[in-house]
Amino acid sequence: MTYCVGMLLDTGLVFLSDSRTSAGVDHISTFRKTTVFQRPGDRVMVIQTAGNLAITQAVISLLREHIELADGTPNLLTVPTLFEAAECVGDVIRHVHRRDANQLKEFGLEFNASLILGGQIRGEVPRLFSIYAAGNFVEATAETSYFQVGESKYGKPIIDRVLRRSSSLSEAAKCALVSMDSTIQSNLSVGLPLDLVMIKRDRFEIARHMSIDADNEYFSGIRHRWSDALREAFAELPDPDWLRMPMP
Amino acid sequence: MTYCVGMLLDTGLVFLSDSRTSAGVDHISTFRKTTVFQRPGDRVMVIQTAGNLAITQAVISLLREHIELADGTPNLLTVPTLFEAAECVGDVIRHVHRRDANQLKEFGLEFNASLILGGQIRGEVPRLFSIYAAGNFVEATAETSYFQVGESKYGKPIIDRVLRRSSSLSEAAKCALVSMDSTIQSNLSVGLPLDLVMIKRDRFEIARHMSIDADNEYFSGIRHRWSDALREAFAELPDPDWLRMPMP
Repeated sequence: MTYCVGMLLDTGLVFLSDSRTSAGVDHISTFRKTTVFQRPGDRVMVIQTAGNLAITQAVISLLREHIELADGTPNLLTVPTLFEAAECVGDVIRHVHRRDANQLKEFGLEFNASLILGGQIRGEVPRLFSIYAAGNFVEATAETSYFQVGESKYGKPIIDRVLRRSSSLSEAAKCALVSMDSTIQSNLSVGLPLDLVMIKRDRFEIARHMSIDADNEYFSGIRHRWSDALREAFAELPDPDWLRMPMP
Repeated sequence: MTYCVGMLLDTGLVFLSDSRTSAGVDHISTFRKTTVFQRPGDRVMVIQTAGNLAITQAVISLLREHIELADGTPNLLTVPTLFEAAECVGDVIRHVHRRDANQLKEFGLEFNASLILGGQIRGEVPRLFSIYAAGNFVEATAETSYFQVGESKYGKPIIDRVLRRSSSLSEAAKCALVSMDSTIQSNLSVGLPLDLVMIKRDRFEIARHMSIDADNEYFSGIRHRWSDALREAFAELPDPDWLRMPMP
């Protein structure tokens, strides 16, 4: 399984995913299940993938191929808006669906893929999309500051409580890491290392991408502090005294 | 949807479920989706249900009917062990499966039901079981202090962090309520009122059963305090300084 979260802030974007495979090509650098597409100064995009790996890898490969072919059909590095970039991704998912879905069904497998696409193209504000297996998608609005794919439920409550559009990129990264930690604590299928990408608004390139493992000093520090703080906060809540009261 | 959690402690059991329907009969009192079967002084059992309501209601009705028929076949009030009580429940689920599953399939519906059974019969220690739609079940061992059914993921991290077999019944009830609050915050399909049942070891009857609504003073108090405490604990964690460091 996978857990990915993409966050849209006033000052940029933050992406965090767990994941264990890696590859890198040319002007497209794939960092495990997080793929970065950028043309510094003009655009930067991040795609996170969850679901059937054969499907999501095919999607990423085809998106890359379209860029390399440069045959005039729109691709992620030529489209003028992030909306059209989301359409590119949706089209490619539908192509893979036409190719593979029936065969998968014969083997009792669902056509299962969910993607997050976020970034900024010069002339636009930063945008964030959640793209479904059917190739359709929704965009984060003023009320939505994040999307999740994969094992998303364990780590959702803390994001709902603390993340705001006005959170700084560093606060958002901290929030994503705490959310990931809750997920890892409760679900053995999600694990280290983590991929973190941070994008500053109006810079049109990656500000930071890192692989975070168990020996990352910051992450292991906040994991322990968070765990202690939760236990303390819980201990400080009063216990109910219902057992001392007579039955009504 | 539903979220139910059943907890097994050294000193008894705690059950919490969200839910909105209610009924009550004779020596069997059904308290919404939590049903209590007891013969005070001899045995006390709680069943929590999630899944297709037509299935789970049929299961509870048949368990009740077997008690009322008293035709010599084992029922929840006559079996000598909680293991055999779990077998009773499994048998009834299989009976409903034989009756309904094919018809449900024709309508594209899964045979979907999950139950928690816990309690104590004189001569045994308190025991807790998780029973599946197939009628099979697992029992909580020394390493397992709780089972969940329904929308279980949002509220799992906090239980994993704070609940121990040695927790008191009051602490466990507090933990269940905090876990339920996280679930309600993140999932609109789970909501108040809540049903809480507490059972003290070796008493063979319900110690407390309550309906908890938004105006419950204790619950609304800890909801606010927990929310504030989480935000404070999060704010006190240091932010990462990765954006201030040069790219490696």
